[in-house]
Amino acid sequence: MKKFTSDRVNILSPVISGSAARFDELRSTMRRAIDPQDATGFLEFGNADAGRDPFNPDAHIRKAALEAMEHPGKDLVYTPTQGLLEVRKAIADKCERENGFEVDPRKEVQITVGTQMAIFCTTQCLLNPGDKVLIPDPDYSGYQRIVKYSGGVPVSFPFREDPDGQTRFDAEAMEKIASPDIKLMMFTNPNNPGGYIMKRDDLEAIAEIAEKNDFLVFADDLYEKLVYDGHEHISFASIPGMKDRTITIMGVSKTESMQMFRIGYVIAPQRILQHITKLVSAILIRSSYLSQKALQAFINEPKKYRDMRRDIHRKARDYVWKEFNKIDGIRCNKPMGTSYVFPNHREINPSSYDFAVNLLEKGLVQLNPGRQYGPEVSEGHQRFCFASPMDRLEEGIRRIKAVREEL
Amino acid sequence: MKKFTSDRVNILSPVISGSAARFDELRSTMRRAIDPQDATGFLEFGNADAGRDPFNPDAHIRKAALEAMEHPGKDLVYTPTQGLLEVRKAIADKCERENGFEVDPRKEVQITVGTQMAIFCTTQCLLNPGDKVLIPDPDYSGYQRIVKYSGGVPVSFPFREDPDGQTRFDAEAMEKIASPDIKLMMFTNPNNPGGYIMKRDDLEAIAEIAEKNDFLVFADDLYEKLVYDGHEHISFASIPGMKDRTITIMGVSKTESMQMFRIGYVIAPQRILQHITKLVSAILIRSSYLSQKALQAFINEPKKYRDMRRDIHRKARDYVWKEFNKIDGIRCNKPMGTSYVFPNHREINPSSYDFAVNLLEKGLVQLNPGRQYGPEVSEGHQRFCFASPMDRLEEGIRRIKAVREEL
Repeated sequence: MKKFTSDRVNILSPVISGSAARFDELRSTMRRAIDPQDATGFLEFGNADAGRDPFNPDAHIRKAALEAMEHPGKDLVYTPTQGLLEVRKAIADKCERENGFEVDPRKEVQITVGTQMAIFCTTQCLLNPGDKVLIPDPDYSGYQRIVKYSGGVPVSFPFREDPDGQTRFDAEAMEKIASPDIKLMMFTNPNNPGGYIMKRDDLEAIAEIAEKNDFLVFADDLYEKLVYDGHEHISFASIPGMKDRTITIMGVSKTESMQMFRIGYVIAPQRILQHITKLVSAILIRSSYLSQKALQAFINEPKKYRDMRRDIHRKARDYVWKEFNKIDGIRCNKPMGTSYVFPNHREINPSSYDFAVNLLEKGLVQLNPGRQYGPEVSEGHQRFCFASPMDRLEEGIRRIKAVREEL
Repeated sequence: MKKFTSDRVNILSPVISGSAARFDELRSTMRRAIDPQDATGFLEFGNADAGRDPFNPDAHIRKAALEAMEHPGKDLVYTPTQGLLEVRKAIADKCERENGFEVDPRKEVQITVGTQMAIFCTTQCLLNPGDKVLIPDPDYSGYQRIVKYSGGVPVSFPFREDPDGQTRFDAEAMEKIASPDIKLMMFTNPNNPGGYIMKRDDLEAIAEIAEKNDFLVFADDLYEKLVYDGHEHISFASIPGMKDRTITIMGVSKTESMQMFRIGYVIAPQRILQHITKLVSAILIRSSYLSQKALQAFINEPKKYRDMRRDIHRKARDYVWKEFNKIDGIRCNKPMGTSYVFPNHREINPSSYDFAVNLLEKGLVQLNPGRQYGPEVSEGHQRFCFASPMDRLEEGIRRIKAVREEL
């Protein structure tokens, strides 16, 4: 038979070797072998996916979804590709009220199947082969893979790490790497996996560098509501002059107990959004009507629900942060936001893949090797997701400590 | 500012001119102006989208979705990228029971956000720039656009039209156009928009041509359950020897009153499916847990629900088929399947765009110009979707007759 696969899809499966390959193989084997209900078996904490997030949709969300199923006739169930106008209006109101920038619901909002889809569509719409994309180290591991799928070239710039293990934006480091060759910068804020929240100064520095070098900015605000200790999340699009060069994505799978709906959205200037909408129509025509209605109910929900869920996350954060810092050779940041800690274990083992393999083999516990999040600063760390029930977190920490003692 | 869009995305917006441009402009203007609730205003019948499908999810589907929202804890809400294994098992059982071919639920099934996503992912995974794809005329208009997005080159072959307006598969015409240059053939069965259902002989002829020229076959079985008058739908993958070169897609947005969930699936040999799964992970990680559970409930539903919905569709078909044939200059097929008729209006106007513009301007009624479905056979036809309440169909037919009388 003819060779059947395209060259582009092979980019999505790079050949890996050494401890990275060993890590992937072990994890796959264990995943296949385990019963996810069995807390005495293999435990995963690397991704929110595996974190057994303790939240179910709240009653008001379930009610909205049920209403949508029982009485859909008042809307078009085959919604416009952009999404129902009333949901886009709710999003625009929310951005003005909570994020400090104005949005035209008819021209600047596209509803997507999770924020991942917004990342995919944006990079497909913006990048030609060879186009350079500036990404912090550390930052979301999916960016590199998706940028490469579009033929783009990821270019890293380092955050700076404090003695307590907190990685922070470093304007000088960014300035040094930025150039007019860059077409796009992508960053999560709050930072995944490092938990850093950009201050106004940071965002203004990015704005200045973006203007000087004339590149677009992709602001991934997925974790905007998952912030602790009174830290303030500021949307990059609200920085004066920046809205016209900013693509913002937001979602509901984190604080919002709404993972099961797979829904998110992207806000961009019309000249860019119109292309994203075309691509959404080619990929899947429209997102689920039911999920759009659930999104609408969430956006209009009373703040108390979100505060309640955030408090539960904060308690989990406090617990894992303290416990990681009790382990000899580990310095763990106290994240300002997100549901991740990003402990530095260089004194135990400088290689994040090696250490992750140790944890898997000896402790049946999986964390995500830091190397996935960036080439330098991220190495020697693990990402640990604490969106998990407390007894599960305790068992995970117990196992990590036991592995440490064996080494 | 730099030029911001990629070359690839511009393929999705071809420059159009003449009556095609006039049609697009008129339709957009009218869509913006209308209230979809107002049956005295603009009426669309081109797509199922606009057809105001009269069905809501049945009680057993709503119950399954509600259960999934209230008690998600027993599953992973962050499902595997392929989809929940129990849902894939239900799909595999269904294919063996209803479609006559065996499927390995672990290696050969990927759940997607509607069948459109399966089309997008398959073409991205298979086609390199310049690869040729054989597509019947008429067939689903989305194929051409998506094949081109992957750099592929659509190659048409004509169906043959009976005196009663029914377009049919023609093995000789396919044989004449097929060559070892072809990488993939794509076709809907039942045929959208023509309503033809492939007989076993037809599928065996395709199998022979595919083997001789060594190309893969993409069998779009979306309308498999929407068949009338005792016609039998046969899946191409069930033809002996063909499973290994066939990608099959199936969905639930048609007979199944489940449009609001946006869910479908693709079945392919593991060597291809693994790439599709990688791409799904890059585009949106996973489909909605809630929609997957609704899909599971549907696959296991008693046959009586489907029969009931099909009967309603059949009555609508009988009505529009008879009424179109009363119009002077129109020959309308009696479709064997799908929710479309594909009336031939060449005697009135040989150009499908011109006639569609007449209908829009004079009748405020929108059908889909046949030219979208193929370059030759499809020209001089309109696609009309009859998945619509009866009073709306009556009003639509009334307007089309009135426009005809004015011409």
